[in-house]
Amino acid sequence: MPHTLILLRHGQSEWNQLNLFTGWVDVRLTEQGKAEAARGGQLLAESGLHPDVLHTSVLSRAIQTADIALDEADRLWIPVKRSWRLNERHYGALQGKDKAQTLAEFGPEQFKLWRRSFDVPPPPLADDSEFSQVGDPRYAGIDGDIPRTESLKLVIDRLLPYWENEIVPDLKAGKTVLVTAHGNSLRGLVKHLEGISDDDIAELNIPTGIPLVYRLSDDLTPLGPGEYLDPEAAAAGAAAVAAQGAK
Amino acid sequence: MPHTLILLRHGQSEWNQLNLFTGWVDVRLTEQGKAEAARGGQLLAESGLHPDVLHTSVLSRAIQTADIALDEADRLWIPVKRSWRLNERHYGALQGKDKAQTLAEFGPEQFKLWRRSFDVPPPPLADDSEFSQVGDPRYAGIDGDIPRTESLKLVIDRLLPYWENEIVPDLKAGKTVLVTAHGNSLRGLVKHLEGISDDDIAELNIPTGIPLVYRLSDDLTPLGPGEYLDPEAAAAGAAAVAAQGAK
Repeated sequence: MPHTLILLRHGQSEWNQLNLFTGWVDVRLTEQGKAEAARGGQLLAESGLHPDVLHTSVLSRAIQTADIALDEADRLWIPVKRSWRLNERHYGALQGKDKAQTLAEFGPEQFKLWRRSFDVPPPPLADDSEFSQVGDPRYAGIDGDIPRTESLKLVIDRLLPYWENEIVPDLKAGKTVLVTAHGNSLRGLVKHLEGISDDDIAELNIPTGIPLVYRLSDDLTPLGPGEYLDPEAAAAGAAAVAAQGAK
Repeated sequence: MPHTLILLRHGQSEWNQLNLFTGWVDVRLTEQGKAEAARGGQLLAESGLHPDVLHTSVLSRAIQTADIALDEADRLWIPVKRSWRLNERHYGALQGKDKAQTLAEFGPEQFKLWRRSFDVPPPPLADDSEFSQVGDPRYAGIDGDIPRTESLKLVIDRLLPYWENEIVPDLKAGKTVLVTAHGNSLRGLVKHLEGISDDDIAELNIPTGIPLVYRLSDDLTPLGPGEYLDPEAAAAGAAAVAAQGAK
C-alpha cells in the first residue's frame, strides 16, 4: 500500500490582496481565501481521500484554511499538530513592504534574487519593527533565536527535522496525512520529496487552495509526480503565482 | 501560582434549534451558535486570559466553537488535543427524537429521569439506526464497544481518565487550559471538580458560549467557585437551559 500525503497551500490573505510581503506576519484569510479553502475541502471530499491527521504551521491563515477545508470534508475531528517549522519563509526586512514598490526600488534582478534564489535571504528584520515576531508567545518554544530572515535553504533546514520526526512517523503508521502550509514551506517540502535541484526549484510555483497528492513508497519516495485534485485550476493558479514575480 | 482551567460549552446547534435530542449525532452550529462562540472568544480576549492549550471533543460543534473563539482571541495557533471522552452524553434511543414529543409521549417524570437523573441511561440506540455512530471512523480508536447510550455517571466514568491523563498534566505544567465541550461532559467535569453530590448535580445548568474559569490549587481543587466571564449573561443562560427541561 502506498503512503498518501496531501499538501494544501492557503488561499488569499489580507496581505496577498494588498500585495505586501507577509512572511511570519500573522494576517488572516480574505473572503476569497476562505472560498479557496472551502473549494479545497470539497475537492478532498469528492476525491474519496480521507485525511487521518493534520499538520499545520502556527500561522492563522494556514490554520483557517485547514479548519474550513476539513469542515467541508467532514473531518474536523482528526488529530492536529502545529509547528513553526511549517511556517512561511521569514521575509526579513521585506515583511510589510509593498511588492511593486520593492520591485521598483531595487530592480527586477534584486527582486527575483530575494524572491526565488535558493540561498540569498533578504536583509534581516529589525527587532523593533512592528512586523517583528520577537516576543510573540507562539514562538516561546523555539530553542535559540527565532529567525529574522530566511532563504528557501534556511526554510528547508528548519522544515526537514519536522518532516522526519513528526510527519514521516504518521505516514509510516499508514495514516493519510494532510499538511496545510505556505508557498515556500511547501516548495521546500516538494523539493525534498522530488529531489529538485537548487536551481530548478526557482521555477516551481504551487497554486493556492488545490490539494496536491503524493503517493509514496515505503521509503517515502514519490511513486510519481504529485497530482493536483483539479489539474486545470492548478495550472492556471501556478501561472498566476509565477506572474506575481513578473509584475 | 494557581492553575487556570477554562470551560466553554458550545452554542446553539442545528438540532438545538430544532429541539431534537442530539448526543453523539454530529450536527453543526447555527449562525446563532457561531455568534455565541465569537462572543466567548471576545470575553476571553477581554479577560486577559491566554489559553496555552485546547482540549475538545471529536464533535464538530465543539470544534467549531473552539476554532471561532480562538480566532477572536488571536490564539488559533495553540496546540490542540481532541478526544471522544469529552463528547456529549450519548442519548441512546432518544437521539434524533423531538424533545417536546418525547415529553408528551413519556410524561414529565420519565423525561426528567432521562435528562437529569445521575445513573439512568435512556434505552440503547439500535446499531441500524440512522443516528448510530457504529462504524464512524472517528471512533475506530476506542478500545472495546462504543457506547449505545449513557447516563451522566457513564459520561463521568469515561471522562475522568482523560482528565487525569491529558488535562491534569497540562495544568501541572503551568499551562492555561481551555476545554470546549458539551452540556453533560462539562457538568460531569464540574461535578468532579466541585465535589457536587449525585443528587445535587441535577440542578446544575451550564450556559452556552460563556467561558467558565476555575483557579485550582496544586492538587487541583478549586480555590473558589467557577466564575463566568459574563456573570449576568451566564445566569440568564443557565435559566434558559433549565427551562428546556420544563418546556
